[in-house]
Amino acid sequence: MLQGHQSWVFPNKPTILSSATVVGPFEGEGPLANDYDFIHSDLWLGQDSYEKAEEKMMEEACERAIHKAGLQKEDIQFFLSGDLLNQIISSSFAARTLAVPYLGLFGACSTSMESLALASLLVDSKYAKYALCGTSSHNAAVEKQFRYPNEYGAQKPPTAQWTVTGAGAAVVSPQGDGPKVTSATIGRVIDMGISDPFNMGAAMAPAAVDTITAHLRDLDISPWEYDLIATGDLGNVGFNIARDLFKKHRIDIPEDRYFDCGLMIYHEDQPVLAGGSGCGCSASVFYGHIINKIKKGELKKVLIVATGALLSPLSYQQKESIPCIAHAVSIEQGVI
Amino acid sequence: MLQGHQSWVFPNKPTILSSATVVGPFEGEGPLANDYDFIHSDLWLGQDSYEKAEEKMMEEACERAIHKAGLQKEDIQFFLSGDLLNQIISSSFAARTLAVPYLGLFGACSTSMESLALASLLVDSKYAKYALCGTSSHNAAVEKQFRYPNEYGAQKPPTAQWTVTGAGAAVVSPQGDGPKVTSATIGRVIDMGISDPFNMGAAMAPAAVDTITAHLRDLDISPWEYDLIATGDLGNVGFNIARDLFKKHRIDIPEDRYFDCGLMIYHEDQPVLAGGSGCGCSASVFYGHIINKIKKGELKKVLIVATGALLSPLSYQQKESIPCIAHAVSIEQGVI
Repeated sequence: MLQGHQSWVFPNKPTILSSATVVGPFEGEGPLANDYDFIHSDLWLGQDSYEKAEEKMMEEACERAIHKAGLQKEDIQFFLSGDLLNQIISSSFAARTLAVPYLGLFGACSTSMESLALASLLVDSKYAKYALCGTSSHNAAVEKQFRYPNEYGAQKPPTAQWTVTGAGAAVVSPQGDGPKVTSATIGRVIDMGISDPFNMGAAMAPAAVDTITAHLRDLDISPWEYDLIATGDLGNVGFNIARDLFKKHRIDIPEDRYFDCGLMIYHEDQPVLAGGSGCGCSASVFYGHIINKIKKGELKKVLIVATGALLSPLSYQQKESIPCIAHAVSIEQGVI
Repeated sequence: MLQGHQSWVFPNKPTILSSATVVGPFEGEGPLANDYDFIHSDLWLGQDSYEKAEEKMMEEACERAIHKAGLQKEDIQFFLSGDLLNQIISSSFAARTLAVPYLGLFGACSTSMESLALASLLVDSKYAKYALCGTSSHNAAVEKQFRYPNEYGAQKPPTAQWTVTGAGAAVVSPQGDGPKVTSATIGRVIDMGISDPFNMGAAMAPAAVDTITAHLRDLDISPWEYDLIATGDLGNVGFNIARDLFKKHRIDIPEDRYFDCGLMIYHEDQPVLAGGSGCGCSASVFYGHIINKIKKGELKKVLIVATGALLSPLSYQQKESIPCIAHAVSIEQGVI
């Protein structure tokens, strides 16, 4: 039910029955390699375009999540998904393959938590028995669309981030074994006037802080309730801005419990400039590494704050700034 | 709650407290002129791009809907919206202006009913007191993106449809005066292999029929329960295919109660080839003309089946066919 201005508390605590992550070769060389369900050795995935490779990756993550939940795709009532490609084609084509009722979403990289929040709402309020949510991004497909094709070899500034090649999906159900989704906070669009698509961390940081602030206010809780607060993909530029903003607003975020998925997904010596980004970033980190830690009992209560730069190449060309958003979902283990 | 495979029945019957439509000059010359809240005399709306004109139209529809409900934007908890432009920028920029928590959606022209279905679910299950939903399209912005800029004067085949310049929005609430949303059916992606962006009616018709069939099956009702069944924007090609498919599948849709928004919005002598299309089509027709008829008591129970061609210019260039979807929402007057 609605709590405060913009948060949902789920009285029935929906279960993440299963999740799955499928990533590309570069992510497979990163520190979270053991947490992925499958690492592709080739960016093409045997397809004849990067866009089709992304679609295939999304389908694989969905199929693995459904299989791990012990279900068939016919058991799934709704598929909630979106991605960064124009008209969210990876999601729509995956929905065609899955052939289950489909709710297309777009929140750029915040789609991972927008879809999990809505899937949780559906099952919590008895509008679905099993909802599948997911998102994906593919470095070569996304860079081509938003900036330059990688093949051009264009130089990037140190504030630029590396789009993750990865897909993550989860099956959410009213009951069962697994981590519980206990609340969610839906973000507002925040735009501080940044218009540089090579500095999305700085653009997104205020949105992350706005949503976390709203979450703590709506639920009337302290950030210390969380063992881990992870923003989506701010990278090191946005992460440091977010930490500064917390200090400025006197929000006492525990330093040793606040992380960013864009900084977790790659080794420091991987050449990713300011860090990872893309819908697949928070999805791959959360649905793999973090959820595994929750299941092992190493984390009890986490807040995942997926951040999205709602950037369009067209509005960028028209000198518009980048509207940003963040959606937060709280996940707990050991609650009934 | 979930009913059947893919339908939601809303036990608390959410109210459409208000709705508003804002359209362009060409739509203002059509037969539904008296039902629009505002008709712009100029496609530019005083902006320096068509994209910004679409954003402004969306904002105006939202502001009018909020005002007609006797509310302030601060009263709205969530804004659910999407459009046809890449990265749904009209919606995202409108969300920036509104500054309320935002759930970005993409279902192409089916977004009108995807957003109404989800907004109804939110208020029905007490996850929002007031939810705002809406969608928009702008002929010049959309044609440029999906086909050719109008200024090129490219010839179109008779199966092509005319993208509506229009925006529609509504405020949904758990109680109050107004038509009630009683159920919704979320569609599956249907793709019969059509890849011609100048023949979207034919591509979308099977999705419309699939969703209507699912709706009647899930709710175990006859199509004769409805005074009006209106598909989103099939145009005359898709409309006739849908009627043939109903006959083939032995679904007894009353001929005199089945209409298509794409055929309702323009006069026969307006040069729109196969009819209207675009997110603004079903939104402008439903949130203006049809809702006014419901309020006047001329229609008691209607089923709006918004159809969406989830087409991307990129996937079209890659020789992919057009995945299509339709979402249906049932609206009734005089139920408690």
